[in-house]
Amino acid sequence: MILITNDDGIIAPGIKALIEVASGFGEVLVVAPDAPQSGQGHAITITRPVKLRKVDLYNGITAYECSGTPVDCVKLAKNVLLKNQKIDLCVSGINHGSNASINILYSGTMSAAMEASLEGINSIGFSLSDYSFDADFSLAKKYAEVIIRDVLMHKLNDCRLLNVNIPAGQDIKGIKVCRQARGRWIEEFKEGIDPRGEKYYWLTGKFEYEDHGEDTDIYALENNFVSVVPSGFDLTAYPALNSLKRMENLI
Amino acid sequence: MILITNDDGIIAPGIKALIEVASGFGEVLVVAPDAPQSGQGHAITITRPVKLRKVDLYNGITAYECSGTPVDCVKLAKNVLLKNQKIDLCVSGINHGSNASINILYSGTMSAAMEASLEGINSIGFSLSDYSFDADFSLAKKYAEVIIRDVLMHKLNDCRLLNVNIPAGQDIKGIKVCRQARGRWIEEFKEGIDPRGEKYYWLTGKFEYEDHGEDTDIYALENNFVSVVPSGFDLTAYPALNSLKRMENLI
Repeated sequence: MILITNDDGIIAPGIKALIEVASGFGEVLVVAPDAPQSGQGHAITITRPVKLRKVDLYNGITAYECSGTPVDCVKLAKNVLLKNQKIDLCVSGINHGSNASINILYSGTMSAAMEASLEGINSIGFSLSDYSFDADFSLAKKYAEVIIRDVLMHKLNDCRLLNVNIPAGQDIKGIKVCRQARGRWIEEFKEGIDPRGEKYYWLTGKFEYEDHGEDTDIYALENNFVSVVPSGFDLTAYPALNSLKRMENLI
Repeated sequence: MILITNDDGIIAPGIKALIEVASGFGEVLVVAPDAPQSGQGHAITITRPVKLRKVDLYNGITAYECSGTPVDCVKLAKNVLLKNQKIDLCVSGINHGSNASINILYSGTMSAAMEASLEGINSIGFSLSDYSFDADFSLAKKYAEVIIRDVLMHKLNDCRLLNVNIPAGQDIKGIKVCRQARGRWIEEFKEGIDPRGEKYYWLTGKFEYEDHGEDTDIYALENNFVSVVPSGFDLTAYPALNSLKRMENLI
């Protein structure tokens, strides 16, 4: 059983592309948000209930739209819809827009895949570096297919999650296995006045790449390679453990 | 300048406790959600504008409530309210409830602190292992104070973020510097029927601790120590880079 989700919503062209690829490998279940949920990160819905509705969008593929976040979709799939059933793989995406570098933290697509990985399920998040709704997913599908086949065949051994980013365009040179680049958003807020006369702020910004290593996902993408970053969920900064030992003597 | 935020909302007793402690070290700015935002993880608001409203809640302390997520609060503080001003420290919390182990991923309190750390700002997220609104923060304040003093004095060198969890009760034995424990949520969804006759699912669950190391945050808390986990944002699973090199030859 392959679980498919995303954060752009169940009718996004990117998830359609991923369903077409993944359903070639066996039975699939689609559980995806009923509306776009970009930037939802690892948010879960705890203060209100969520709903699931079975939809017939993809030629007989079992699919549910969910009123919750991408992470909610994975929790509901695992604990309600597929209770006690083995999930061989979770795939998330194909995201409309890059999730390289620190964008793994903001991305609902990557957080959904990470949630499955927390449950011990091999998981892959796919993103195409093209934000447009009518992006061309044909080459992305080809790469998604070979990577899914590889993971189903060899499994993932030293991690449970891959962050796969695919450059836009037709000139892809191959696949690079990379580390997450350092980078940050240079934020601007567009300020305006709403119809009631109140000031508002609307987030916008530009991603700045601060890492000049040639072993990063951003470097791979800039050189027209598909980037594959094996990813985890242990955020401990191990090199800092020693220097902070001083704190044990504070009180 | 010390920036203060949280995810339980600007009127939560936990942030009041943190304001009382942090304002003893110099000028502070409070920017916190106008409503509870637990479980929002690293969510940001991109599809609609957010608002800031200056509030007079804490005896002349400059404070704004924000209609966005905890991470939005930090972005607005840095880019709008404190534009070009140096932020010496960001403190988030004191959270009502533990954020140990993988809960760093789900927690808006920790994600807000992590967002500041992405900007190079030394940041500390504080949580008390007591979910109740009328939790007793007196001992938590004492530990927050010594840890803030230490970080202001020595800075953070090998990381920019501390995940500090404080056990409930009066019998605290000291501070332990730890790694993030492995663990997972055993989820259940309470199912019900809403007033319109539609089925709903409401997330609940129980945290299961799967890590029996004595160097973890959960172990420290279970033994009545305050846990301090130095934390980062590089999710690369470095041990997997080698075994995945095979993927570079797939196409």
